[in-house]
Amino acid sequence: MSSLKNVVENRDNRAGRLFDYFIQVVILFALVVFSLETLPDLTPNARRWLHIAEIGIVIVFTAEYILRIIVASDRWKFVKSFYGVIDLLAILPFYLALGIDLKLLRTLRFFKLLRALKMFRYIRAASRLKQAVLLAKEEIVLFFIMTLLMLFFSAAGIYHFEHEAQPDKFSSVFHSLWWAVATLTTVGYGDMFPITTGGRIFTFFILIIGLSVLAVPTGLLASAMGEVRLKNEKEIEKLREENEKMDELEI
Amino acid sequence: MSSLKNVVENRDNRAGRLFDYFIQVVILFALVVFSLETLPDLTPNARRWLHIAEIGIVIVFTAEYILRIIVASDRWKFVKSFYGVIDLLAILPFYLALGIDLKLLRTLRFFKLLRALKMFRYIRAASRLKQAVLLAKEEIVLFFIMTLLMLFFSAAGIYHFEHEAQPDKFSSVFHSLWWAVATLTTVGYGDMFPITTGGRIFTFFILIIGLSVLAVPTGLLASAMGEVRLKNEKEIEKLREENEKMDELEI
Amino acid sequence: MSSLKNVVENRDNRAGRLFDYFIQVVILFALVVFSLETLPDLTPNARRWLHIAEIGIVIVFTAEYILRIIVASDRWKFVKSFYGVIDLLAILPFYLALGIDLKLLRTLRFFKLLRALKMFRYIRAASRLKQAVLLAKEEIVLFFIMTLLMLFFSAAGIYHFEHEAQPDKFSSVFHSLWWAVATLTTVGYGDMFPITTGGRIFTFFILIIGLSVLAVPTGLLASAMGEVRLKNEKEIEKLREENEKMDELEI
Amino acid sequence: MSSLKNVVENRDNRAGRLFDYFIQVVILFALVVFSLETLPDLTPNARRWLHIAEIGIVIVFTAEYILRIIVASDRWKFVKSFYGVIDLLAILPFYLALGIDLKLLRTLRFFKLLRALKMFRYIRAASRLKQAVLLAKEEIVLFFIMTLLMLFFSAAGIYHFEHEAQPDKFSSVFHSLWWAVATLTTVGYGDMFPITTGGRIFTFFILIIGLSVLAVPTGLLASAMGEVRLKNEKEIEKLREENEKMDELEI
Repeated sequence: MSSLKNVVENRDNRAGRLFDYFIQVVILFALVVFSLETLPDLTPNARRWLHIAEIGIVIVFTAEYILRIIVASDRWKFVKSFYGVIDLLAILPFYLALGIDLKLLRTLRFFKLLRALKMFRYIRAASRLKQAVLLAKEEIVLFFIMTLLMLFFSAAGIYHFEHEAQPDKFSSVFHSLWWAVATLTTVGYGDMFPITTGGRIFTFFILIIGLSVLAVPTGLLASAMGEVRLKNEKEIEKLREENEKMDELEI
Repeated sequence: MSSLKNVVENRDNRAGRLFDYFIQVVILFALVVFSLETLPDLTPNARRWLHIAEIGIVIVFTAEYILRIIVASDRWKFVKSFYGVIDLLAILPFYLALGIDLKLLRTLRFFKLLRALKMFRYIRAASRLKQAVLLAKEEIVLFFIMTLLMLFFSAAGIYHFEHEAQPDKFSSVFHSLWWAVATLTTVGYGDMFPITTGGRIFTFFILIIGLSVLAVPTGLLASAMGEVRLKNEKEIEKLREENEKMDELEI
Repeated sequence: MSSLKNVVENRDNRAGRLFDYFIQVVILFALVVFSLETLPDLTPNARRWLHIAEIGIVIVFTAEYILRIIVASDRWKFVKSFYGVIDLLAILPFYLALGIDLKLLRTLRFFKLLRALKMFRYIRAASRLKQAVLLAKEEIVLFFIMTLLMLFFSAAGIYHFEHEAQPDKFSSVFHSLWWAVATLTTVGYGDMFPITTGGRIFTFFILIIGLSVLAVPTGLLASAMGEVRLKNEKEIEKLREENEKMDELEI
Repeated sequence: MSSLKNVVENRDNRAGRLFDYFIQVVILFALVVFSLETLPDLTPNARRWLHIAEIGIVIVFTAEYILRIIVASDRWKFVKSFYGVIDLLAILPFYLALGIDLKLLRTLRFFKLLRALKMFRYIRAASRLKQAVLLAKEEIVLFFIMTLLMLFFSAAGIYHFEHEAQPDKFSSVFHSLWWAVATLTTVGYGDMFPITTGGRIFTFFILIIGLSVLAVPTGLLASAMGEVRLKNEKEIEKLREENEKMDELEI
């Protein structure tokens, strides 16, 4: 029992690592199967094979879910935990859709994609990212609010300038919001753009100010991550120096 | 009287926080109503409800404005202050448009959006943003001037290269300025683009240089904000260390 | 004579500052006149006024050029200096085009825009920008070369993938270079884009790698400018501390 | 023999530098010839000249390859090294295609572009870039995985929202992936974009989150490079200070 726990929950032994890699490969396989299922003009034969693959994936994930419940120290705690819920949501849509095939239920399958999030359990740098987000949290929230306000201002402004010239495109502030999103993120699909002189001058000012607002959080995050890395390095060095001093004293 | 002042001006008591949250919710509600009013094909019934909502909003803001004047230590100073003027501009368009319905007056309503700016009063990180802007002020101004020059150079250059090939699109330096804005911000709507070899080579050089110019202020702001955060942390740590020394001395 | 020198070359007196501001306003006026001249459908009357304005501008700049030569300590050195050459280029096209009106000569007028560069003489932060550019020079050059290579690789690759599917658009590596410029700068006009699966997968990899390459110099410049600001602050503080120590010693 | 080694392998003498510059110029010439060959509507005469140029280039590179083998201390080690393989791949396609002219073999020529990579041997800043990449390696890998997940989530989501409205454009998750790449990199060609309200709201959230994810690695790299530069400067200063101390002791 305790050896099974080692395989499922730990990564400090060969079998545990193999178990993890196997699950990760199945997750990636599930993503590919999900994508292939959306291809148009699939032959009935291809559909059958994809369905078999789907069944195989669900069997693996169901077995994984049951194993994790069995080996958990506190079973109910695991079921309620973040990864416990994700593990359940990854298999639930299949069982719910077994007999029936309602459109609405099939959309639940979308949560299956969250399986990929499990991979983050294994990457150390993620904790540094978490620290950095906490460090720059307040600034990021501030800029997020400013982004929303900026988008609203832009939409209301461009509606004012372009509504009469292009009533079919800028037909309301809500329609103009789509333009604001596409413009301030600099995606610029080209489905909507100002044609009046006023609208173009307004767009210029909105872009000059808005680009700074939208791009700053990224810079903040990057510099916070650099800071966290430096702090961790200093702490490690400090510990080493203290050890060296202790060694000297003992001599 | 002094308790009313606490509710309206302070946030260190429950009633004061509730008052603030209520005003913020009404601001957001006003933004939604403003947006809904711009929807085309509204039924007369919907229009009536939106008008009633508008009246309710103006009543709340008028009450807030009067309350703030009443509790202010220096009433005339408040009326002249930034938020005093915004509070007035938020309700003025409604009263001005009561009887008449001139198009020109309705555009004044646009200032109503500035109500949202009030929300910044409450966010602490905003002061750090302000410090950072002050820290990088000179560089930001320099890059703003360089951006304007860059845009003008780009417009004049592309006019030179593309005017003959596309006289209807690049018909003057002013028309070309719109291309320069959409290109240097990398929005690239696709309504105007160079087709001559000369124009394309020119665009390449303009982009290589211009992108650096336009994106640097954002990076400056982000690094300045990181600097401000570090400084504040150091000051707090310094204070703590001094306190500890004082404690040691006393022993 | 020495007072005239003060007015033209220095900014530490009222007359000198007024002279500078006047020249700057005339430069901006020249930019507007240049832009207006490109407007299509100008009336003959408007053309005449613009021509008169042009003559006025040239008179002012000629007077400025002569004054700067007169007051210069080493006249020949000024004429050969960067701003001396710019001052000459700003007026030369007009005199060369006086009698004749050749197309080729009119393009020389484009250098007139460089007048605006003079404005940088007056901004202090520009020196910090210069220091930052020197600090990050090697990295910027490296990334510039990498950008050029990246563009060439992208163009050659997309030509390979898209040439057969869209022979009229991706007709050679040179035509594909335009796509590479518009794509890697994320402008994305939408006049050229891959339609084959191979071309799209190639574009994905090119973008993931290329965006990092093109955006890094901007980040480098921003962090270098922050560094320069910190260094200058430290130097000023150091000087102050040394002065304080000297004061203590003297007591 | 040892003098030949100096010319081919070292840059600390005039002949060695001249050899390097000559090879670099030939590489650039080869790039131009490669590009020119793709031009449509070349005259037979132009084709002949390009073919002669191609033969000349291959002769130079073959001579270089043989020289580098001759002067190498460990010949087999050089042949197996990264640059040894590149040197071979740069000439191999030509010899393989001598008699025959198969389409498939001509694509091997694409590796010829890698010759340009040789230029990096000579730039000192490249080592700093390498250090910076190592410093931020874990974060870059994390963000690369997050980028891939983000792209997949975006593609699956937009497929869900837009498939019914635009079945010909968003026909599968694979087709939607192309939209995700063009949108999250903010290229925005405009060949595919959401038209439903759900798809547009989804795009907004995807962009707000996704832009941060995609742009952070660049910021990380830039700050890591700044860090490396600072470290190197400090080390140089430390060495100088230690030398000065040694000098003082000796006196």
